[in-house]
Amino acid sequence: MSGEDAPVQQQNAVDQKQETKPAEEPKAEPPKTESPPAAAAAEAEATTEKVPEEEAFTYRALVLTGYGGYDKVKLQVKKGKPALKAGEVLVRVKACGLNFADLMARQGLYDRLPSPPVTPGMECSGVVEAVGEEVTDRKVGDKVMVLSRFGLWQEVAVVPANHTFLIPEGMSFEEAAALPVNYITAYMMLFDFGNLRPNQSILIHAAAGGVGTAATQLCKTVKDVTVFGTASASKHETITQGGVTHPIDYRTKDYVDEVRKISPKGLDIILDPLGGSDTHKAYNLLKPMGKLITYGAANMLAGQKKNLIAVAKNWYHQFSIHTLSLIQGNKSVCGFHLGYLEGETELITEAMNSILDLYKQDKIKPRIDSTWHLEQVGDAMRKMQERNNIGKVILTTEPMPEEEKKEEPKKEDKKDDKKKDDKKKDDKKKDDAKKEEKKDDKKKEEPKKEEKKEEEKEEPKKEEK
Amino acid sequence: MSGEDAPVQQQNAVDQKQETKPAEEPKAEPPKTESPPAAAAAEAEATTEKVPEEEAFTYRALVLTGYGGYDKVKLQVKKGKPALKAGEVLVRVKACGLNFADLMARQGLYDRLPSPPVTPGMECSGVVEAVGEEVTDRKVGDKVMVLSRFGLWQEVAVVPANHTFLIPEGMSFEEAAALPVNYITAYMMLFDFGNLRPNQSILIHAAAGGVGTAATQLCKTVKDVTVFGTASASKHETITQGGVTHPIDYRTKDYVDEVRKISPKGLDIILDPLGGSDTHKAYNLLKPMGKLITYGAANMLAGQKKNLIAVAKNWYHQFSIHTLSLIQGNKSVCGFHLGYLEGETELITEAMNSILDLYKQDKIKPRIDSTWHLEQVGDAMRKMQERNNIGKVILTTEPMPEEEKKEEPKKEDKKDDKKKDDKKKDDKKKDDAKKEEKKDDKKKEEPKKEEKKEEEKEEPKKEEK
Repeated sequence: MSGEDAPVQQQNAVDQKQETKPAEEPKAEPPKTESPPAAAAAEAEATTEKVPEEEAFTYRALVLTGYGGYDKVKLQVKKGKPALKAGEVLVRVKACGLNFADLMARQGLYDRLPSPPVTPGMECSGVVEAVGEEVTDRKVGDKVMVLSRFGLWQEVAVVPANHTFLIPEGMSFEEAAALPVNYITAYMMLFDFGNLRPNQSILIHAAAGGVGTAATQLCKTVKDVTVFGTASASKHETITQGGVTHPIDYRTKDYVDEVRKISPKGLDIILDPLGGSDTHKAYNLLKPMGKLITYGAANMLAGQKKNLIAVAKNWYHQFSIHTLSLIQGNKSVCGFHLGYLEGETELITEAMNSILDLYKQDKIKPRIDSTWHLEQVGDAMRKMQERNNIGKVILTTEPMPEEEKKEEPKKEDKKDDKKKDDKKKDDKKKDDAKKEEKKDDKKKEEPKKEEKKEEEKEEPKKEEK
Repeated sequence: MSGEDAPVQQQNAVDQKQETKPAEEPKAEPPKTESPPAAAAAEAEATTEKVPEEEAFTYRALVLTGYGGYDKVKLQVKKGKPALKAGEVLVRVKACGLNFADLMARQGLYDRLPSPPVTPGMECSGVVEAVGEEVTDRKVGDKVMVLSRFGLWQEVAVVPANHTFLIPEGMSFEEAAALPVNYITAYMMLFDFGNLRPNQSILIHAAAGGVGTAATQLCKTVKDVTVFGTASASKHETITQGGVTHPIDYRTKDYVDEVRKISPKGLDIILDPLGGSDTHKAYNLLKPMGKLITYGAANMLAGQKKNLIAVAKNWYHQFSIHTLSLIQGNKSVCGFHLGYLEGETELITEAMNSILDLYKQDKIKPRIDSTWHLEQVGDAMRKMQERNNIGKVILTTEPMPEEEKKEEPKKEDKKDDKKKDDKKKDDKKKDDAKKEEKKDDKKKEEPKKEEKKEEEKEEPKKEEK
């Protein structure tokens, strides 16, 4: 256990001190959950008699305690009811979405997350429990989904009201937590940068992932769009049902060859979450007037800790383009990341309204891969990072039943192990270098997993405090 | 006079020989104007008796005889009626459009024009005089506008029927010659890559030029678009009437500062025909989700001959972008050039149909700056290159009246001189280095201008042959 893993009480106190310091980046608007300084001071003195409601208020929060593996995200208990400023609402969180940027952030590869200790989480759903002054369009009891730069993986979050969106009739909290990041990302890429129109063709990498599923559904809202989607073979049936016209098993086939066989001239739009050499391939696979939209560097993620070789490779192969080449090719290269669109409330609200209209018309529906308790966040992240999900990985703030705490994690582990075995078979087909890296990662992982289980057993004690 | 400037007859013979050789680039489909080899052979032998119609057929053509100044484009007379292949039509050309790429081509800076001797010209209007086999949608007498990679600055052109578009009722031949390149370019940039929508803001460089005028008019077809347009002060009244919201005199003001004063967050779309360091400025001036569309390197043109310093500068400052920067900025960089869209008949026809619909609804109207006889092509090019035009510079195939041949050119020269004087005054405000370059160019130009006048006097003799 590292020095960062201090007992909850102490850790919490440290958090409070740190969080009442001026924010490192003045522009950041994280959901605030600390007690105001005055209340904290009061708390320190008033150790006897009746405890004010604000101080008795506790809630569980996931905290990234340092960069590294899955075990770096800890469940902690925080004290003190967060104060609301004008324009803010307090949301009782029901479910949270996991995103690739959260995995990058855990490894220290995402600069939009402040330094640890910090609560990650860019999207959640829940119920408005209190509203600040000047909030006119939200009231207590409203079911909302929330989008924020970070700080939503906890039971209670304070956010600006204009970062919340009303959940439409019939949408579950899980669906609502699965929607904002993936659908806004897919929507803006396809309909703003991509300018997707009837009869066009598109390549969606990781078509079974969160953005991939959303993008596929959104493509289906436009007439006669041909969707090429990459995914491992076991997911092909599902993504085909979801709207992918031509599924491609990227583990056994060269996706460029597969696309060219069917669409020799290339494609109108390519969504690229991979980065590195895959961006080069995508560029060459564009038709005239084609648009390459890059929105990540998933190739940087190899193993659960920062892999310097993978990061360096990605940098080395990073795509760079001269305007002369763009002119001669009649091509477009776009970059997108919702995390860097902070403050563009108008653009985001516009996209969200269109998305919610499509939901109400039954044209889109978030697909949930699996739902995990806060205690299981490590396994949830692993499932996503190892590409074992189909659709969205969700965290629920529902308390974990006592029996599950002893049994469920093991069951999940068994499931994971089975999938890992499948994966190993697949990996044999891949290049040896990658396999070596993978094995090393796994070796390093094992002991930590043991640690993790021990921690989970400790968890109930912490919560009881 | 260089060796390339051979007498017309000989030059023509050389042309014919070269043109019957296999094309250098098999994909190129230039308008063919040569006699078929069989006819050419017959011509060589049949020197007596009656001359077949095909051989008596002569027409004037502008020919780029070598890379260099305005005088490198010569008016020549060609012999022999061009043969039609299946799918082709023969067009009697009435008017031709001048484009910036023609100026680049003359200096050897445009790789879509085959090596000299060659007839330049990417657009024209005229009347169908003959149709080849398998042509079903064009008939003799149809008024058409034509788009081609090169070869249209002549009285007769043979082109694939699907490179022609019917001229709508009420459109003059001059307007029709002014429309294809500028409007298709502006349309595809704004509505395909740019995805222009209501309430957006845009910067149009050279707003008084051909593409600039077309783009401004097309912006006005979308609700509440704010147009920033650069042009010298004398053109501001005209471009404001044409739809530019905020005219900027780029000669006396920093356009970046001017835009920021009014639109501090930057712009949604920037059309960049300049290249070099202006592309960098444009990129930094984009809003999140903004689109930079670069479509030329006008900064490379300094003086009438290839200016190696300007070319090198442009290359040195050429914009190159990493995907990570695009992602963090949520930006798009696109390159467009109609000359490299050859073969994309469907895309081009789709754009043209939309443009002609807008014309029929009186929403757009090509603006003609001036019309010049083929003999005056040098002055026409000069006017465009020196940015003295407002709207399109057009060549007409109408024969030049005898009196104009002696008087008109001088009159044009005087006009040009006056403008040059105005320009010199403006230039004083610019940096000294540029002024020095300019002066040098002018010194070099003077003697050639004299040469040119002499050639123009010779022209009638050539035509009489």
